[in-house]
Amino acid sequence: MKKQVYFFGSNMTEGKKDMKDILGGKGANLAEMANLGIPVPPGFTISTESCAEYYDLGKKIPEHVIAEIEDNLVRLEKAMNAGLGNAEKPLLLSVRSGAAASMPGMMDTILNLGLNDAVVAGLIKKTGNERFAWDSYRRFIQMFGDVVLGVEHHDFEQILGNRKNTKGVKFDTELDAKDLNAVVDEYKKLVKKVTKKDFPTDVKEQLMLAIEAVFSSWNNDRAIHYRRLNDIKGLKGTAVNIQAMVFGNMGETSGTGVCFSRDPSTGENVFYGEFLMNAQGEDVVAGIRTPKPISELKKTMPKVYDELVSYYKKLEQHYKDMQDMEFTIQEGKLYMLQTRNGKRTAQAAVQMAIDMVKEKLIDEKTAVTRVPADSLDQLLHKQLDPIAKKKHKVLGKGLPASPGAAVGRIAFSNDSAIKMKEAGDTVVLVRNDTSPEDLMGMNAAQGILTSKGGMTSHAAVVARGMGRCCVSGCGEAKVDEKEKTLELGGVKLKEGDYITLDGTAGLVYEGQVPTINPELSGSFGELMKFADKFRVLNIRTNADTPKDAMQAIKFGAEGIGLCRTEHMFFEGERIKAVREMILANDVDGRKVALAKIKPFQKQDFIELFKIMDGKPVTIRLLDPPLHEFLPKEEKDIIELAKDMKVPLIALKQKAEKLHEVNPMLGHRGCRLGITFPEITEMQAEAIFEAAKEVAAKGIKVKPEIMIPLVGKVLELKNQKDIVLSVAKRVLGDKPKVEYMIGTMIEIPRAALTADIIAQEAEFFSFGTNDLTQMTLGFSRDDVGSFVPDYLRRGIIEKDPFQVLDRNGVGQLIKMAVEKGRATRPNIKLGICGEHGGDPSSIEFCHMVGLNYVSCSPFRVPIARLAAAQAAIKYAHGCELAGTKTTNGATNAATTLANDKNDSKKEDKSSAKTEVKTKVVVASSKKPKKK
Amino acid sequence: MKKQVYFFGSNMTEGKKDMKDILGGKGANLAEMANLGIPVPPGFTISTESCAEYYDLGKKIPEHVIAEIEDNLVRLEKAMNAGLGNAEKPLLLSVRSGAAASMPGMMDTILNLGLNDAVVAGLIKKTGNERFAWDSYRRFIQMFGDVVLGVEHHDFEQILGNRKNTKGVKFDTELDAKDLNAVVDEYKKLVKKVTKKDFPTDVKEQLMLAIEAVFSSWNNDRAIHYRRLNDIKGLKGTAVNIQAMVFGNMGETSGTGVCFSRDPSTGENVFYGEFLMNAQGEDVVAGIRTPKPISELKKTMPKVYDELVSYYKKLEQHYKDMQDMEFTIQEGKLYMLQTRNGKRTAQAAVQMAIDMVKEKLIDEKTAVTRVPADSLDQLLHKQLDPIAKKKHKVLGKGLPASPGAAVGRIAFSNDSAIKMKEAGDTVVLVRNDTSPEDLMGMNAAQGILTSKGGMTSHAAVVARGMGRCCVSGCGEAKVDEKEKTLELGGVKLKEGDYITLDGTAGLVYEGQVPTINPELSGSFGELMKFADKFRVLNIRTNADTPKDAMQAIKFGAEGIGLCRTEHMFFEGERIKAVREMILANDVDGRKVALAKIKPFQKQDFIELFKIMDGKPVTIRLLDPPLHEFLPKEEKDIIELAKDMKVPLIALKQKAEKLHEVNPMLGHRGCRLGITFPEITEMQAEAIFEAAKEVAAKGIKVKPEIMIPLVGKVLELKNQKDIVLSVAKRVLGDKPKVEYMIGTMIEIPRAALTADIIAQEAEFFSFGTNDLTQMTLGFSRDDVGSFVPDYLRRGIIEKDPFQVLDRNGVGQLIKMAVEKGRATRPNIKLGICGEHGGDPSSIEFCHMVGLNYVSCSPFRVPIARLAAAQAAIKYAHGCELAGTKTTNGATNAATTLANDKNDSKKEDKSSAKTEVKTKVVVASSKKPKKK
Repeated sequence: MKKQVYFFGSNMTEGKKDMKDILGGKGANLAEMANLGIPVPPGFTISTESCAEYYDLGKKIPEHVIAEIEDNLVRLEKAMNAGLGNAEKPLLLSVRSGAAASMPGMMDTILNLGLNDAVVAGLIKKTGNERFAWDSYRRFIQMFGDVVLGVEHHDFEQILGNRKNTKGVKFDTELDAKDLNAVVDEYKKLVKKVTKKDFPTDVKEQLMLAIEAVFSSWNNDRAIHYRRLNDIKGLKGTAVNIQAMVFGNMGETSGTGVCFSRDPSTGENVFYGEFLMNAQGEDVVAGIRTPKPISELKKTMPKVYDELVSYYKKLEQHYKDMQDMEFTIQEGKLYMLQTRNGKRTAQAAVQMAIDMVKEKLIDEKTAVTRVPADSLDQLLHKQLDPIAKKKHKVLGKGLPASPGAAVGRIAFSNDSAIKMKEAGDTVVLVRNDTSPEDLMGMNAAQGILTSKGGMTSHAAVVARGMGRCCVSGCGEAKVDEKEKTLELGGVKLKEGDYITLDGTAGLVYEGQVPTINPELSGSFGELMKFADKFRVLNIRTNADTPKDAMQAIKFGAEGIGLCRTEHMFFEGERIKAVREMILANDVDGRKVALAKIKPFQKQDFIELFKIMDGKPVTIRLLDPPLHEFLPKEEKDIIELAKDMKVPLIALKQKAEKLHEVNPMLGHRGCRLGITFPEITEMQAEAIFEAAKEVAAKGIKVKPEIMIPLVGKVLELKNQKDIVLSVAKRVLGDKPKVEYMIGTMIEIPRAALTADIIAQEAEFFSFGTNDLTQMTLGFSRDDVGSFVPDYLRRGIIEKDPFQVLDRNGVGQLIKMAVEKGRATRPNIKLGICGEHGGDPSSIEFCHMVGLNYVSCSPFRVPIARLAAAQAAIKYAHGCELAGTKTTNGATNAATTLANDKNDSKKEDKSSAKTEVKTKVVVASSKKPKKK
Repeated sequence: MKKQVYFFGSNMTEGKKDMKDILGGKGANLAEMANLGIPVPPGFTISTESCAEYYDLGKKIPEHVIAEIEDNLVRLEKAMNAGLGNAEKPLLLSVRSGAAASMPGMMDTILNLGLNDAVVAGLIKKTGNERFAWDSYRRFIQMFGDVVLGVEHHDFEQILGNRKNTKGVKFDTELDAKDLNAVVDEYKKLVKKVTKKDFPTDVKEQLMLAIEAVFSSWNNDRAIHYRRLNDIKGLKGTAVNIQAMVFGNMGETSGTGVCFSRDPSTGENVFYGEFLMNAQGEDVVAGIRTPKPISELKKTMPKVYDELVSYYKKLEQHYKDMQDMEFTIQEGKLYMLQTRNGKRTAQAAVQMAIDMVKEKLIDEKTAVTRVPADSLDQLLHKQLDPIAKKKHKVLGKGLPASPGAAVGRIAFSNDSAIKMKEAGDTVVLVRNDTSPEDLMGMNAAQGILTSKGGMTSHAAVVARGMGRCCVSGCGEAKVDEKEKTLELGGVKLKEGDYITLDGTAGLVYEGQVPTINPELSGSFGELMKFADKFRVLNIRTNADTPKDAMQAIKFGAEGIGLCRTEHMFFEGERIKAVREMILANDVDGRKVALAKIKPFQKQDFIELFKIMDGKPVTIRLLDPPLHEFLPKEEKDIIELAKDMKVPLIALKQKAEKLHEVNPMLGHRGCRLGITFPEITEMQAEAIFEAAKEVAAKGIKVKPEIMIPLVGKVLELKNQKDIVLSVAKRVLGDKPKVEYMIGTMIEIPRAALTADIIAQEAEFFSFGTNDLTQMTLGFSRDDVGSFVPDYLRRGIIEKDPFQVLDRNGVGQLIKMAVEKGRATRPNIKLGICGEHGGDPSSIEFCHMVGLNYVSCSPFRVPIARLAAAQAAIKYAHGCELAGTKTTNGATNAATTLANDKNDSKKEDKSSAKTEVKTKVVVASSKKPKKK
């Protein structure tokens, strides 16, 4: 039998930090700390493999594991010179989960295990601290009762609350030993009532039940949801850490705390943390009492503080990353209970990465991988407008628990938050405190406000992880979750009212405060420079307006990958001309209307070309069905009829004629340009006339004209011929404008016949929004009726409109890339669907060898970082098989790990098929920055 | 230079019948007849390659071809002892088109070429027949003027008409030489007026202009449309046949005719044809004079008749197929002008094929290939109900020109016919006579009625080719095409009124006569037996009702490939329960409603299982979105609200909630079964309870349960689990019912991940309707706005919903077949989209190795024949590389000719990529008929 249980502490440590896979993060790090000579209470870790085996056996702990547990328990009892269930020398245990990836609060923990009436008596005798003993006992019954026996946490709390009420006190600490003894009695009765059995007094039984409960918690809904949300895949299960208890609640020389080697909120290189004296760990995290800043420990217990400082420094140096640590002081002696790489805000991640490079702790490549690309979103959206915010009333101040700004309607419950979000509102979740049950509500909210809890409270930690803005511990706030009201700063707000949070300052504002967009400066700018050194993909932006284009340039965009010309059709006077065109009965009528639109279009292009100053600009010809330009409401139709001086009936008939059953698959894209060639002609004229004018001023212009919705090469050919003839007419025989004509690949047939289409197309741009709709048969507008259900049931793991479906849509893209390059080796390949801004999808684009991704201006920095991370991740594969092909491409056969996982997930029985993807790096000659 | 002109006749023949490709059908057959010793007027053929070269040079006859033409003209003059333009010994020429595929009447012909004022005088002198000479001259000017010079045919006819009116006569033959001389003068003036030039008198110029005109006519709209309609592809162009004229209009011992070696309408083995004395060929075909049956020639000219009989027998024996011949008798001497395989009705094709096998003229395999599978449609639809038709008034009688029945609204013009058809009406086109301009109108009509013309008139020939019912030469009918009225049998009908044609009997009925469906008997039945010997594919039917299922069994269906259960939801009481289910607010409410539907569903299945008696029955679970079951109209909604006793507002809200932007891509298929598992459960219960009941009676039952709209294997898994658990519950542990669970492949993603899906699916059925919609991005309901335009512009060649798009959709099918078999070698593969009844698509299904196709009951015989033809066509490839694989499949690599053409068509520049398809024959062990 393979070893399944590993001892740690007391110079008998068997594990180490790189055994995370089988010991879990917590277990591996406990072993590692012990190896480093840092004091940890001894204990042992049951491996993640046992958890897998537990499930394989139909939820049964394997016999050989039980035997190993018993052996290790004996070792532990020896090391502690105490015995589990031994009233003379009582040994109490903690039983904690710990998977290879951090899942804070998602799985179960049991503390103070090993107590029964006999042991509690012994404990009193041994410690002389009656209150401590009874407090430990009541905590144990409560936790064990809730986690293992399924008695409602709430019911225990009610007993405790009643006791406090009877006594007229506010805090648990104000209850004395007698009170707690009474509470224990009531707890036992409650357990008996609910479970029809006495609370188990056999301490071995307690231990085994606790271990099973931890294993079971691996697959509770919360944990499954958390893994899905955080893209945690391929783990065996959770390990279980059984450790001798040390007590922070043994009096005023005892205490417990959480600390970070740097500030997890700002990234500043300062020692950061909180502690509570005479408390157990759960009190700090639960946010019931507000803890004190770590600096105060220096005054309280200077020796302990110095020791703690030396440990944190040692640990950070050892792990080369910011550490998040838990410690307990038992009667003046410091124990480290946990260390792990700390969660941090995006701002902190950036700051630490850059600082650590400067401190030579890590290299630039590592720095680039330290910041989750998606997390930059926190830095790229929303700060309160510094001028405008002055005009808004500050309602109150709390802790700046997670930076950024949130403007939204108040929700007091998970359900409300989710519903409001689904209704299209932005939401601020307001609570006294949060617990793991609130995860989905917090995810739905833009920001979280709590009246209780500190900087390391559940709300604060989770909000930072999720990139949600959070103000915690706002004590002035009176939150009535039942009545759904918030009283703060003399104002009483109800559900649905607007408030604004400033998570960076910890302030709460009344109403909706305008927000502004941030810039790339300082450490953020430096990180971007590092990223640019490593990435291979070019990053373009989707921009239809000069404003967007300018913002994107500031964020480092290297061109426009998608300019949707129809957006230019909606503004002001133009829409009138567009409608005139739609209502025209013949070509001549349409041409008259189009002539009115042309000057506007031309001006739009002139501005874009100037801003992009020589960078390529991909312009997509008119795409949406014409009915989108007509009003929908009866009154608007009547008004339009008057306005256009056409009979109402004629207008209605036209609208009726244009109506489509499935507009998504209807008369749009190049189909419009083919039936109404005059539209294509007008747009081509506007583009080339603008290009000519701008070029004449000595500014370089690179239009790339993109024909949408092509499924057959002859469609492209038809439109290309029109564009070419206009180009010849406008630019003359020797054009000074370099232009290209290409197509979107957004219809499955286009991908399937990409070799043929590439005969006419100089570039492909993957329109993954529509490609996803058609490949999956999902109407983006209609999936609300079943996709949430699919996500809930795990039929799909991610919304395919957010994260590219690699096995389906990705397979078509890969096929099109290969076929396109086979016909036209130097074909330019990009993506302009919304996936162009999603890190996982960008990684895929890198792997299949696209030349660029294009995304919204605010996602350009994310894309730059994600592209660099993909390049770093797959650099090894490239070096492995790296041979230059004729067009300078580097090929490497690397199994695409994610795809493998996807198909394994799809294939629950016997995965015979593995989707493999070659990593093809399109062009190692990245254009130099201009 | 490659030889481009080939002489024939006078023992100097250079061509032969298998040179069709370069000589065209007419040219090759003229050469062949000459080789067989049958008298043909000598002449020469300019090759189809010259036509291609003509277009390559920008519509210019190549110099080297002109030189060859001149050489051959000299040979011809020698052979005829006459000279072109020689007034002493005048040689007149016919100039005729003739492509490799028959395109009757689509391209141009010029007769009597070589006439001018001097030659006509010489002709009079030589023949002593003044009237004949002037008649030839006026015919020549008229034809040349129309075809070469672009003078309206109508304007010539008016001059001729005026002359007849002035003289008070009815027929051209009543005009004498003087009249015709005057007509010639007027014709010349007309030409001068229109063309601003004199009619060309240089005979060489006449010849070259005529040749160019024929080349040009290859690409006139009519010809292009005809080729598209008849799927004629890959030809180089038309050949031009220049032949010495012989004259049927030289008096009462001269004549001309058309004859067939068997009856082209019924297939009967009798000599069949028509002739006119003192006429030229065009008079017979144009239908202006009604010709006499060929049998009368025996009386008129017995020697010529016997000669003709010997020739037709020789030719049929030689070509081993029914011949369609043209002949001319010049002053008692018989000349054969043309022979070709004759067009025929489907009924005739079947009859001839079977007869010829009995006569040992051809073998069974050849017989199977002799009947175009699609043409069986004529035999499989519509005959007049023999009882019901007695109650309808017969308005008149004409010639039974093309069999079958047509019931429709009268249209008097092409435009009306097309418009009416587009409006959803069935149409009968009523004309005095038809010409090639009427092609599209005839295509739009179900039947054609003409007042003029014989059995070989344009209307009759084309109608038979198209499979349209036709009554021609109905002399009593007064058709006023301008006033749009038809007077017949004492009734005056206008456009839009209903009439009924019986093309088999040549009768015209008033109003709408009910029709009945035919049976497989006699020769048809024998042909089906031959087909079954050769085909590899099984043929199933799409049937939702016992009636359909029974009809399909009669037609030879080997199972049900698609039973759409939702069709069962619409009838009578059921729809109420369905609506109750939709309106229910929770699972329990839905279950109550579903319990009401179940007995109906179960009864449906019991009946189907009994009828199919051991044949497999594929049942698709509920597919359409729920809103399809709710009424659309305001008044129906109000009524339903009353009926269901729900508030109107609630009903409207529900309908609003169910509304979808793109229902095609919305909440339907297995997505319904996943969000409402109780629906799947009810359907599975109905199926298994029915199966159990029928099996208990000793009848074998083979249900195949099909989960629709699967895109991911987990969707299938989810639904399969439900079905399996119901099966276990209903059938017990040892079920006596063999059942399978599989899926439709109708979403591109399903095809792309078919290897993974096959882990759960026991069968795939390709739902090519939806697969086409999604792969091409074409909403079937909306393509009307651009697909007609696409067809017109040649961007697509065929409606992809009728004929499977091999390069796009086909590629996905091929991929899914290969991936599916890779995972599950014995997976059962079929198709249930409407393509399952289309011969070209069936051929594709054979090639990619499906096990069966499923089509509507009335297309089952077509599918049987098409499957046999595909097997015969690709048998060679199979023998070539034929190796048995483990599952009994035969593999052969054969380039898929059509796909090659498609991609060539798509690839106008440089076809580097050829789509190749292996012919994979799924199972050579075809199940024995039960």
